[in-house]
Amino acid sequence: QRGGDETSHQHLRYNPLRDSWVLVSAHRMKRPWAGQVEKPPEEHIPRYDPRNPLCPGNTRANGEVNLDYESTFVFENDFPALQPDAPDPGLDQHPLFQCKAARGVCKVMCFHPRSDITLPLMKKEEVVKVINQWADLVEELGATYPWVQIFENKGAMMGCSNPHPHCQVWASNFLPNEPATSDRCQRAYYEKHGEPLLLQYAKQEAEKKFSLSSHQLPFLMPFIINAPQIAFLRPTHHFIVFSLYLCHSLCLLGLADIMKRLLTKYDNLFEVSFPYSMGWHGAPTGPCLKENNSHWQLHAHYYPPLLRSATVKKFMVGYEMLAQEQRDLTPEQAAEKLRNLPDEHYKTREN
Amino acid sequence: QRGGDETSHQHLRYNPLRDSWVLVSAHRMKRPWAGQVEKPPEEHIPRYDPRNPLCPGNTRANGEVNLDYESTFVFENDFPALQPDAPDPGLDQHPLFQCKAARGVCKVMCFHPRSDITLPLMKKEEVVKVINQWADLVEELGATYPWVQIFENKGAMMGCSNPHPHCQVWASNFLPNEPATSDRCQRAYYEKHGEPLLLQYAKQEAEKKFSLSSHQLPFLMPFIINAPQIAFLRPTHHFIVFSLYLCHSLCLLGLADIMKRLLTKYDNLFEVSFPYSMGWHGAPTGPCLKENNSHWQLHAHYYPPLLRSATVKKFMVGYEMLAQEQRDLTPEQAAEKLRNLPDEHYKTREN
Ligand SMILES: O=P(O)(O)O[C@H]1O[C@H](CO)[C@@H](O)[C@H](O)[C@H]1O
Ligand SMILES: O=P(O)(O)O[C@H]1O[C@H](CO)[C@@H](O)[C@H](O)[C@H]1O
Repeated sequence: QRGGDETSHQHLRYNPLRDSWVLVSAHRMKRPWAGQVEKPPEEHIPRYDPRNPLCPGNTRANGEVNLDYESTFVFENDFPALQPDAPDPGLDQHPLFQCKAARGVCKVMCFHPRSDITLPLMKKEEVVKVINQWADLVEELGATYPWVQIFENKGAMMGCSNPHPHCQVWASNFLPNEPATSDRCQRAYYEKHGEPLLLQYAKQEAEKKFSLSSHQLPFLMPFIINAPQIAFLRPTHHFIVFSLYLCHSLCLLGLADIMKRLLTKYDNLFEVSFPYSMGWHGAPTGPCLKENNSHWQLHAHYYPPLLRSATVKKFMVGYEMLAQEQRDLTPEQAAEKLRNLPDEHYKTREN
Repeated sequence: QRGGDETSHQHLRYNPLRDSWVLVSAHRMKRPWAGQVEKPPEEHIPRYDPRNPLCPGNTRANGEVNLDYESTFVFENDFPALQPDAPDPGLDQHPLFQCKAARGVCKVMCFHPRSDITLPLMKKEEVVKVINQWADLVEELGATYPWVQIFENKGAMMGCSNPHPHCQVWASNFLPNEPATSDRCQRAYYEKHGEPLLLQYAKQEAEKKFSLSSHQLPFLMPFIINAPQIAFLRPTHHFIVFSLYLCHSLCLLGLADIMKRLLTKYDNLFEVSFPYSMGWHGAPTGPCLKENNSHWQLHAHYYPPLLRSATVKKFMVGYEMLAQEQRDLTPEQAAEKLRNLPDEHYKTREN
């Protein structure tokens, strides 16, 4: 038990996956907001739009025609941040001006043929197909690339420029900063305690009742999070990377179930299609597949931008960019809020 | 000289102040934008608004009445993220669930009595008063607190909720993550090379012509930057913290001059009052004032959110949050763009 009243007094919390601290000032929720108000997320999206380059059968910017797909659909990003053949910039001698080659591929993956649907409103079997496709992509690209980043930017507020349900997959010839830090932290914990950080974490969480769980899989609203309503999702078993093994086990249905439940709760919070950025972190792949990665535990991070309503964002700006992450809600408050929300989607309840 | 064509091929750049890498994919500028379009920054702000809690003579949320101030004006933030007397949350035994006390003060500092003015449009002597006030605050709060973060969120797009020209000052009993990393990187460089990282950097920059300079002070668009049009400002001399010494020297006018020039160029870029978050980083203060901080060099970071126009933001979302910073413009391209902009503000040119 802690001494202070964490919900009303600021304090620092340790994030063991990033080896850094977060300033939690929950009393800040009381301040009035006279700043920027966002447009609420678009609720009226046509099922099919002949001009949308992500819909089945449509022609994209580069002239390619999409398949008339019926579940998921993967294609190369027409404006990739990573290309397989970029030249080596050469080595500058000065340690302050270092450059390195960056090579890779960027793919786009549609979740469903309909534009007017989202993961929480999809059937469980349809979500299973999405998970299977993720596993296939990690298997395919992870055969050579050390890092395969699956991520979804959902909603215009999160920089998403197309309402059709989709995610992106960027594979690179380098281990990016965030997974490199996470790898270092998980490895150090494992070496010291002989157990994976995130498995130990799950045990502690169950005791502290921070997590919501389904019959097969728990989903977690953990202590280490640093943005409001953030979530942290992972299988209970010790899966290291997204793999067919994960997908062919019982876990698959459980994962689909818990994803649907989490995202339904997000949508129910302000009764809008909730914006977020999310992505999966598993052990590095490619040449690293041969290394011992027992310290890793596959998991997903969800970062939603909304704080007090469908139109008031939590801005991560001056203090956060220059000094340290700061949040206006404790993880316990966020977990409590989500836990108390209905499991049925507000849109299906209405009907 | 480098081998590849950096403006058209992606590559990684090292950021020596954060010991991390940035993915630069300049060819991404070519992609069309169908995503969120921001409201252009508000251009018609009344000189005085009787309901604005930052204007001279007005009453604030807590009932206090502002002085009828004539240059700068400082008061305690009515909704502070840091308070001086927060209780200690107590130590949890488990290494994954650590908490620490966070104590401090948050102040708001108005730059000018008029709401319809910004730093680039202020007289040089008025900017000098702002710099002097910064030095006073660092001296006052830095006497006890190890970190005093001066930062300005400008524009609604950067989470600023009041158009009156102002910044914030948050002092804390802990060294936040960002300056802790910067301290570590500068110290390591100094120990290895016997010279401060940022002084060495300035020399290299002058050779590479990355920086714009005024007669007294350079301002820099350096290689290490990780957002479009970012800037990096610092005195040429080896100043460690904001101090009266800095302010009483010749540097003061030079700093005011270069701040005005940089911000004028930003405003001229899209002919709007350019949004940004900025802040100062100097050596830690309080108990650290007694330590050897020769590795430090006082400097400011500017982070503007705009990319291609006054209404198209560069979103730092999925890949950036989960994997690594990514930018669509090289620092050289950004520096070139700014260098070619007029030194006279578009608003004064129009008249
Ligand atoms: O204190 P303000 O101006 O109300 O708040 C602004 O700056 C803070 C510090 O960067 C952020 O935490 C807030 O999200 C932002 O809206
Ligand atoms: O690739 P998209 O969807 O056009 O772009 C979106 O996601 C990218 C990866 O997180 C970001 O760099 C862009 O700023 C964002 O708009």
